[in-house]
Amino acid sequence: MTPGGAGVRRHDHQTTQADLTAGAVLAPYLQEQAAEFLRSLRLHRENSAPTDAGTHGAEEAAGALRRSSRRIGGTLHTFRVALDAAWAEQLRTELAWLSGTLAREHAYATRLGRLLEALHSLSGTSLPTARNGVGADRAADKERAALGVGAARAGALLERQLTLARTRAHSAALQALGSSRFHAVADAVALLASEVPLAPAAAAPAEEMLHGPADRAEQHLLTAVAALSCDQAEPYNEAQDAPWHRTRLLLRLHRYAHEVVRGAPDPVLAAPGRALDLHRDASEAAAAAASAARTPRIAPATAYALGVLHADQRHEVKTARGVFRASWPYTAAAVTGP
Amino acid sequence: MTPGGAGVRRHDHQTTQADLTAGAVLAPYLQEQAAEFLRSLRLHRENSAPTDAGTHGAEEAAGALRRSSRRIGGTLHTFRVALDAAWAEQLRTELAWLSGTLAREHAYATRLGRLLEALHSLSGTSLPTARNGVGADRAADKERAALGVGAARAGALLERQLTLARTRAHSAALQALGSSRFHAVADAVALLASEVPLAPAAAAPAEEMLHGPADRAEQHLLTAVAALSCDQAEPYNEAQDAPWHRTRLLLRLHRYAHEVVRGAPDPVLAAPGRALDLHRDASEAAAAAASAARTPRIAPATAYALGVLHADQRHEVKTARGVFRASWPYTAAAVTGP
Repeated sequence: MTPGGAGVRRHDHQTTQADLTAGAVLAPYLQEQAAEFLRSLRLHRENSAPTDAGTHGAEEAAGALRRSSRRIGGTLHTFRVALDAAWAEQLRTELAWLSGTLAREHAYATRLGRLLEALHSLSGTSLPTARNGVGADRAADKERAALGVGAARAGALLERQLTLARTRAHSAALQALGSSRFHAVADAVALLASEVPLAPAAAAPAEEMLHGPADRAEQHLLTAVAALSCDQAEPYNEAQDAPWHRTRLLLRLHRYAHEVVRGAPDPVLAAPGRALDLHRDASEAAAAAASAARTPRIAPATAYALGVLHADQRHEVKTARGVFRASWPYTAAAVTGP
Repeated sequence: MTPGGAGVRRHDHQTTQADLTAGAVLAPYLQEQAAEFLRSLRLHRENSAPTDAGTHGAEEAAGALRRSSRRIGGTLHTFRVALDAAWAEQLRTELAWLSGTLAREHAYATRLGRLLEALHSLSGTSLPTARNGVGADRAADKERAALGVGAARAGALLERQLTLARTRAHSAALQALGSSRFHAVADAVALLASEVPLAPAAAAPAEEMLHGPADRAEQHLLTAVAALSCDQAEPYNEAQDAPWHRTRLLLRLHRYAHEVVRGAPDPVLAAPGRALDLHRDASEAAAAAASAARTPRIAPATAYALGVLHADQRHEVKTARGVFRASWPYTAAAVTGP
C-alpha cells in the first residue's frame, strides 16, 4: 500500500476529497489493488506444487487474486474517463478472462458442497417425534427410505460429475496461470502497481471527475433493481434468473466505485449482496441437478431425488429473492428516481 | 328446522341461554343437522343413477351428507355427558365410518386436480421475458423441455393411479350407501331428527352443562397448537405432519361446539382452518407423488418430474404452516394458558 493511498482511504468524507484531483484518489486505490494482486499471485505460486490438485493455501490465494482482479477491472470500467482509455479497456478484458477462469474451479466445489448438503437434509436424518401416530411414522419412514436410496445415488452421480468438472477447471486454471497471456496480465498489473496511466482529465478535482461515474454506477443498480420481476409465483422459470444475475454484477460494480470514492463499501448493501450471491449459487445448483437428471440410463430413484433437489434449490432461489427484497434499503420511490 | 331450534340459534349471547336447559340448546342443533342429513341423502339418491360415476349433483349431496355427519358426530362426542352415552358413542362411530367412506372419493379427485395443476405450472407455460440473455433463455428452455416431457408422463401416471383409486372409492361409497349398515345409520338419524336421546343431566341449565365441554374442546385445540413444532427447517420430514392433521380435527370439533353453544362458528378461526385444510391437501398430494415415483419401471424423466412435484407440494405444506401461524388469532401466552 502506498503512503498516499493509505492517507486518502482513511478519509471517509467528501469534504476532504474536494482538494484532491481525480488521479490522487484513483491511483492509490488501483495501486493498492495491484499490490494485492501481486501478493496473492506470489502466495499462489508458493502453495501450488505441480502435482497438487489445489491445496487450501492455493485456493485462498486464488480467491484473493480474483477479488483484486475484479476490483481493478471494475474500477477501470467505471472510471474510464479519468484513465488511458485503450489501456483500461484492454486490461479490463484480460482481468475478466483471468477471474472468470479462476472462478470456475471454486464454483464447482461450492456447487457440489451445496448439493450434497441439501441432499443430506432432504433424505432426512432426524428421528420422528414420539407423539406422532404410528401409521404416519411408517409412511414417512417408507418415503424417507425411498428418497434415501435415490439420494445416495444422486449424491454419487453429482460428486462424479462435479468433481470431474472441477478437476478440468483446475487444470484450465493452472494452464491459464502458466500461459503467456497471463504473464502479459501480470506484467501490466506490476506496471500499474508503480504507475497508473491516467488521462489528462484526471488532473481535475475528484468530486468533478469521479462522483458522476460513481453515481451512474449506483443508478444502473437502482434501475436494474426496479425492473426485477415481482412475480413470486414461478419459482421454476429459470429464464427469470438472468436479470437477478445482472443485478448482482451491477451491485458489485457499485460497491467498488463506492470503495474508490468513499474509501469503504456501502454497508447497507452488504446483506442484499449476500442474498444475490446465494441466489446465484442456488440457481446454478438447481441447473446442475437438472443437468445430472439428463444423464442417460440413470435409475428412476436417482432421477426422483434429483427432481426433489432441483425443486429444493429453486425454492432457495425464491427465498434468496425474498431476502434480497427484505434487506434492500431503498423504497420503490427512491429506486425509480431521476 | 324446528321452530324452537331456529329461535335458539338466532340468539348469539350467553345471557339468553341462561334460562335454557342443555337439552333445549343441544336438541334443536342435532335435529337440524339430522334433517340436513336426510335432505342430502334424498338429493344424493335423486342424482345417482346406477350407471353414473358421480354427477355434479351427487357429489354436492355427498359433500352435504359428510358435513352433517361430521357435525352430528362431533356434537355427540363433545357433549356426550348430556346425551344417552351408549347411543351417542355407537352413532358417532357409524357416522365416522360413513363420512370417512364418502370422503375418500372426493379426496382422490381433489388430489389429482391439485397435482395436475402443480405439474402444469411447474412445466412452465410462460414465455421468457424479452430482456433476458439468449444463453440463459436457451438453458432454461432446455430444462423446461426436459421437465415438460417428464411432467406429461408423470401427469398421465398420476391420472391413471388416482382415477383408478377414485373409481374404487366411488364403488365403495355406493356399496356403503346400499349396505344394511348404512340403512341402520340412516334410521338412527331419522329417529334423531324427531327425538334426541338426552341424558337426565340435559335438564340442567345449558350454561352449566354445555360450556364446560365446549371450553375443553377449545382447550384441546389450544394445547395442540402450542405443541406444534416451530421447526421450519425440515419441510421434507413427513412424520411431522401428524400433529398438524390432529390439530385440524381438533379445530373442527371446536368449531362445531362453538356452533352449538354460540349459534355460529368462531369467525376468527376460519382462516387458520382453511390453512390446515390446505396443509392436509398438500401433505397428501406430496405423498401421492412419492408413491407414484415408486411405480416399477417408470422412466427417469417421469421420476424426476415426480420428485420436483413432491418437493413442490412439501413446500406448500410449509407455506400452509406459515399461513396458519400468521392467521392464528391467539398469542403464545394465551395458547399455553391454564
